[in-house]
Amino acid sequence: MSEPTVGDVADWWGTAVSRIAPNVIELRGRPVQDLIGSTSFAGVIWLMLRGDTPTPGQERLLEAALVSSVDHGPHAPSIAVARMAATCGVGLNNAVATGVNLLGDVHGGAGEQCVALLAEIADGAEPQEVVARWRARSKYLPGFGHRFHTVDPRRDPLLTLVDQAAADGVVDGSYLRAARAVEQLIAPVPINIDGCTAVVYGELGFPPPLARGLFVLSRSVGILAHAWEESGQGRRNKGPMPPTILPTQIGDA
Amino acid sequence: MSEPTVGDVADWWGTAVSRIAPNVIELRGRPVQDLIGSTSFAGVIWLMLRGDTPTPGQERLLEAALVSSVDHGPHAPSIAVARMAATCGVGLNNAVATGVNLLGDVHGGAGEQCVALLAEIADGAEPQEVVARWRARSKYLPGFGHRFHTVDPRRDPLLTLVDQAAADGVVDGSYLRAARAVEQLIAPVPINIDGCTAVVYGELGFPPPLARGLFVLSRSVGILAHAWEESGQGRRNKGPMPPTILPTQIGDA
Amino acid sequence: MSEPTVGDVADWWGTAVSRIAPNVIELRGRPVQDLIGSTSFAGVIWLMLRGDTPTPGQERLLEAALVSSVDHGPHAPSIAVARMAATCGVGLNNAVATGVNLLGDVHGGAGEQCVALLAEIADGAEPQEVVARWRARSKYLPGFGHRFHTVDPRRDPLLTLVDQAAADGVVDGSYLRAARAVEQLIAPVPINIDGCTAVVYGELGFPPPLARGLFVLSRSVGILAHAWEESGQGRRNKGPMPPTILPTQIGDA
Amino acid sequence: MSEPTVGDVADWWGTAVSRIAPNVIELRGRPVQDLIGSTSFAGVIWLMLRGDTPTPGQERLLEAALVSSVDHGPHAPSIAVARMAATCGVGLNNAVATGVNLLGDVHGGAGEQCVALLAEIADGAEPQEVVARWRARSKYLPGFGHRFHTVDPRRDPLLTLVDQAAADGVVDGSYLRAARAVEQLIAPVPINIDGCTAVVYGELGFPPPLARGLFVLSRSVGILAHAWEESGQGRRNKGPMPPTILPTQIGDA
Repeated sequence: MSEPTVGDVADWWGTAVSRIAPNVIELRGRPVQDLIGSTSFAGVIWLMLRGDTPTPGQERLLEAALVSSVDHGPHAPSIAVARMAATCGVGLNNAVATGVNLLGDVHGGAGEQCVALLAEIADGAEPQEVVARWRARSKYLPGFGHRFHTVDPRRDPLLTLVDQAAADGVVDGSYLRAARAVEQLIAPVPINIDGCTAVVYGELGFPPPLARGLFVLSRSVGILAHAWEESGQGRRNKGPMPPTILPTQIGDA
Repeated sequence: MSEPTVGDVADWWGTAVSRIAPNVIELRGRPVQDLIGSTSFAGVIWLMLRGDTPTPGQERLLEAALVSSVDHGPHAPSIAVARMAATCGVGLNNAVATGVNLLGDVHGGAGEQCVALLAEIADGAEPQEVVARWRARSKYLPGFGHRFHTVDPRRDPLLTLVDQAAADGVVDGSYLRAARAVEQLIAPVPINIDGCTAVVYGELGFPPPLARGLFVLSRSVGILAHAWEESGQGRRNKGPMPPTILPTQIGDA
Repeated sequence: MSEPTVGDVADWWGTAVSRIAPNVIELRGRPVQDLIGSTSFAGVIWLMLRGDTPTPGQERLLEAALVSSVDHGPHAPSIAVARMAATCGVGLNNAVATGVNLLGDVHGGAGEQCVALLAEIADGAEPQEVVARWRARSKYLPGFGHRFHTVDPRRDPLLTLVDQAAADGVVDGSYLRAARAVEQLIAPVPINIDGCTAVVYGELGFPPPLARGLFVLSRSVGILAHAWEESGQGRRNKGPMPPTILPTQIGDA
Repeated sequence: MSEPTVGDVADWWGTAVSRIAPNVIELRGRPVQDLIGSTSFAGVIWLMLRGDTPTPGQERLLEAALVSSVDHGPHAPSIAVARMAATCGVGLNNAVATGVNLLGDVHGGAGEQCVALLAEIADGAEPQEVVARWRARSKYLPGFGHRFHTVDPRRDPLLTLVDQAAADGVVDGSYLRAARAVEQLIAPVPINIDGCTAVVYGELGFPPPLARGLFVLSRSVGILAHAWEESGQGRRNKGPMPPTILPTQIGDA
């Protein structure tokens, strides 16, 4: 083995995402000064994750999907833990990180799994066969069904946007057709928000794990807004129940 | 003390950020379906944090600031730890949370502190007096000076946008004037990116802690992009140095 | 500036905590094989944080303090968020990290602050003056007062152990005297668990921040036990309230 | 559906781990005051995770395993990120949480997987068949092989302790025999620390996920010690490379 060199260290940290040099910042090869003022935040999200820039039609779909999943209230564990963290004497960034940390396979992974499921159908597999195979693995079909909503208010606007984008040739519509085939097959279980955003991300060509990645960016907004609101309310060490419920009342598991 | 009620529990989790009911999702009082397709992601960030919607001019400034700080390469600890996390067998959300967790008072707090500093000057205090007071507290003046950049490439585009916005009556320019006064006072130490975004966030009326909050949302994009790239490179348990550097070579502290 | 070398990188990561080389692991200069089987876990905690080994009397006090604060039930936000995380599809380590992340200045910092407070009195300051000064800063006197307990069941066993240790010359008793002086001064507000462990850690010579560090190690046990129990109960995305409480019932903040 | 009650909320948070009431703290049914001063920290770890107390022989094995994996230096990502976090202006608890968050399937999961692997053999399966099946799934056999150590210095002391415990009837030796059978089969690839602690945890009857849980408790000690050392060295925003390595030198990935 030859002696290690400083170049080995630099290679170890090599990246195609950005290049930083004195007075130079390039994101995916573009000088940052060319992006500021001309590119939207959503456009830069696309650029950073994929290396190119979206067309206006693609960007419109991405914005819509990012907007749709920012929040689902304090019943969502990611939101609740961020609010609790904000009362414990940590930084606002730590409160956000606490919430994001919970967007795991069960809480944040449904979109990722649903892109993978729809991809199988978009690639030519029979919906019935695909649904049967996924259901054999888990009773939860990712992207379908919801505890609260029989018709999720985000469903129609998102799917309509994809419909239009397919008509305009922005996307090819294969994920939308796949999702509708599944929805018909398992009626009356409806497509949910993870399913709708999976349609968008799949149509746009994002690989499944980035469906979770994009959900993280979107939900971070709600997590931050809730942590910020809570931090202004003066509570300390907020538990899941108000102090009026005595610990003695907690049942034995 | 009267008996606790279910209402006590519901009040404990009360919020003005969002309202969720069967088939209803409202963000700051607006049905989510009215936002999807019509509001940008940056616009919804503003809505969630402040409760109203930005004017086009305000939104343009917010987009620019969010775009400007997405990434500063693997020398930044937040980026490096997310890349390392991505090789340890955790979810992509856990990798992002790991990076965000590091955006503390030193790494992510300069913008927050700089908004507070500039606010004092914008409110009428003498720049010289304010700078002296802050310098007595710490040798680092938040928002000014940088290890790598003598002129940060993000400075001119951002400040020019604020200049235009002040000319158009979108903002009043008081934070921009304050930043320029400080820059002149401590020349040749330049304003840095935290200072430039502090000018934007201050002009837009965000309270100082939200400068950190917005930086968290912005930097999350770079953190995600780097974690995602690293996760495709097949490394396991990536340390800070390549394995060619033997542990025996590590010096005693 | 001369060229960077591999040695610079190795120095950057230099440490006196451990030395790792092929077939060699030393913790604070001691071969790990000499510790396994002969040193307790608590003894190695002391070694790693301080560089030497405790006497049996010191170790006994450290064990007692570590035992005393492992858990305070699901009303504690650190415990609750770990249980919630365990239902979201993340690893058990991520659930523990989520809980530990909440042990900030308010939730985990009281012991740290109380060591600092008692140190002032142990070093000769007047209790009355010290208490007045701390109370001017915050209405919460760290280490004193509790929501639930009028007499914390952990108080007497811990203080008795310190009493004995002082009688045996293991510690000098100055932190214990300081705590009793404060308790008398502000009666009937009692010393709480943070105060009792602060007495132990102060007597043993730990600097204040390590009082929080040791609390983190101790509470991690309860956090892990709760996350593990919850992970066996089959819930998914556990929120702070049971699903029987509808989101519609959540009050406006 | 009947109206929700406060009892529903209390049941939602029910637990068998601890009971907290005014002036009462019970851990797994034992008053905490009976444990302070009489039970070791390791003993309470066992109690909290399993509900009963270990025999002295069992406790000795548990202490040894916990001691053996506290640290593996700054090449380990969990240690490095905690040191980096400690320079970013976050609490010591946040730095520890950052390190623990990285102990995922790849970094912290080998012990968990190895307990599962050895359990198959201990339960009667053929070593050759088990190894072949695990190797078909991944080229890494959990618990065997190491980058640095040909003979891990922790191997002999740990396995000798188990040997003695088996001779004394403390454990039945089936996991030790399984590990030795695998080691012989794949020689010269040696058993590593995850394998050795898996033998201990398997012999003691811990389910596989708790092997990771116990590793988290053990490694937290090293993570804390390193974060604490780093926090005293005055660095700010410590990156993975020293600043003498310019960002321009970082290679393109």
